[in-house]
Amino acid sequence: MKNESEQAIAVFGAEGLQTAALVRSRIRKGLWTSHTSGLADEHVQGNLVILPKAQADDFLLYCQRNPKPCPVLAVSNPGDRSLPTLGADIDIATDVPRYRVWRDGELVNEPTDITALWRDDLVSFVIGCSFSFEQALMEAGLTLRHVEQGRNVAMFRTNIPTQPAGPFSGPLVVTMRPLRASAVIRAVQITSRFPNVHGAPVHIGDPSLIGIADLARPDYGDAVDVMPDELPVFWACGVTPQAAIQQARPAFCITHAPGAMLITDLLNHQLASF
Amino acid sequence: MKNESEQAIAVFGAEGLQTAALVRSRIRKGLWTSHTSGLADEHVQGNLVILPKAQADDFLLYCQRNPKPCPVLAVSNPGDRSLPTLGADIDIATDVPRYRVWRDGELVNEPTDITALWRDDLVSFVIGCSFSFEQALMEAGLTLRHVEQGRNVAMFRTNIPTQPAGPFSGPLVVTMRPLRASAVIRAVQITSRFPNVHGAPVHIGDPSLIGIADLARPDYGDAVDVMPDELPVFWACGVTPQAAIQQARPAFCITHAPGAMLITDLLNHQLASF
Repeated sequence: MKNESEQAIAVFGAEGLQTAALVRSRIRKGLWTSHTSGLADEHVQGNLVILPKAQADDFLLYCQRNPKPCPVLAVSNPGDRSLPTLGADIDIATDVPRYRVWRDGELVNEPTDITALWRDDLVSFVIGCSFSFEQALMEAGLTLRHVEQGRNVAMFRTNIPTQPAGPFSGPLVVTMRPLRASAVIRAVQITSRFPNVHGAPVHIGDPSLIGIADLARPDYGDAVDVMPDELPVFWACGVTPQAAIQQARPAFCITHAPGAMLITDLLNHQLASF
Repeated sequence: MKNESEQAIAVFGAEGLQTAALVRSRIRKGLWTSHTSGLADEHVQGNLVILPKAQADDFLLYCQRNPKPCPVLAVSNPGDRSLPTLGADIDIATDVPRYRVWRDGELVNEPTDITALWRDDLVSFVIGCSFSFEQALMEAGLTLRHVEQGRNVAMFRTNIPTQPAGPFSGPLVVTMRPLRASAVIRAVQITSRFPNVHGAPVHIGDPSLIGIADLARPDYGDAVDVMPDELPVFWACGVTPQAAIQQARPAFCITHAPGAMLITDLLNHQLASF
């Protein structure tokens, strides 16, 4: 059985693998239905939330009030499947490898195309993701344990409430990456440059101070060890808006499936604020 | 007995207290012979090291190799008592409130004027000091415990060696400020903007990882408590070059007396790199 990177090369070609528009076109044709980690990895990937206009205004307000977990990269016009600021050819109904369809807060389906579900009142939100700053951290020579071990990043619900807006509320969800002190300092500097993809950490050190009981038992993703000479470092996480949506239980909502993100034409480096 | 700020107002006037050139002129006349904390506090203050030209080249190299503890703001020409880039009227032989004179590494005198000791081969080094970034931290709303408690900052010799140059070598000396995690993140961001006054921290958390046995027993300055919800944060310290000089035992050397710094015309804000 081929491993995932061999599969990706088979689908996209070694060079095409790095080309956002080509990767998107293959995804559009249904040739890639899995997670997007490592695909066109110099490009910004985004979390997707699609809501009817009736809930979209409150959701935008929720994002505005909670910019660290919900950094909005683009919002479409109602019914418009294009997102021209993220890529000239994007069709949001086909360009994500796998979607999740939610009705009344329950997951009902995981299609690879939502053309048949499209409505004139749907608004798409693309929200920044930590893949962008992880590239910058690794380019600076930092080792990220979950990447090294091929795991998903560890995510935790905290006791920090988000600022509610309309029906949307809930706890801040964070990712945790263990780092030695010198790397902590460098990571604060680097991620501060990326406010559109969660920015600087929200907490360093003792997890109990933010309501996390056990680092070995993440609420989402995979656990990784924290070594004695390391500090756990916590960043706001794009799962926060999904948790708010599950709590709000809107009649209809579509998101990306975990890890199967929208690949944009933006370069990660373009998001750096200085 | 008047307290220090009342004494300062008596000497400088309430407004003159904030004027670098006026404070320097009073110091020049011997009207102020004490520490300079709180004087002209929007202005950059500097640590002073004066060495004969024969040792000065090695000392400059030592500073170049250890920029975090030894950020050089200005170096004079041999025999030249002026430092025009730091203040048009500066006379380094008179403008520091109190000096320390060292012979063969031993402290021999603490005069308030070194005109009588001046030589044609003396080179002055002015080295950045953390007062500049402390102002920025406090303006950002952070509370610094040693300031709050009216103590000197706690300083520790670490097990991190500096890079030697000629006779100069020794351990990195650090200051420690206890901060809550959210303030740690902010402090890394803010002090990163000030590379000329020690810049970002060098360590966060467990002091034993950098060879500090007991935070309650600093090697210089005053101890402050670290609360359970705080992390100790360590910055490179301008005492490092003084420790290197004591180790090198040059035949002749002059420094400022602890806390009695050179007040320059530069504004702290001017040092911010972005």
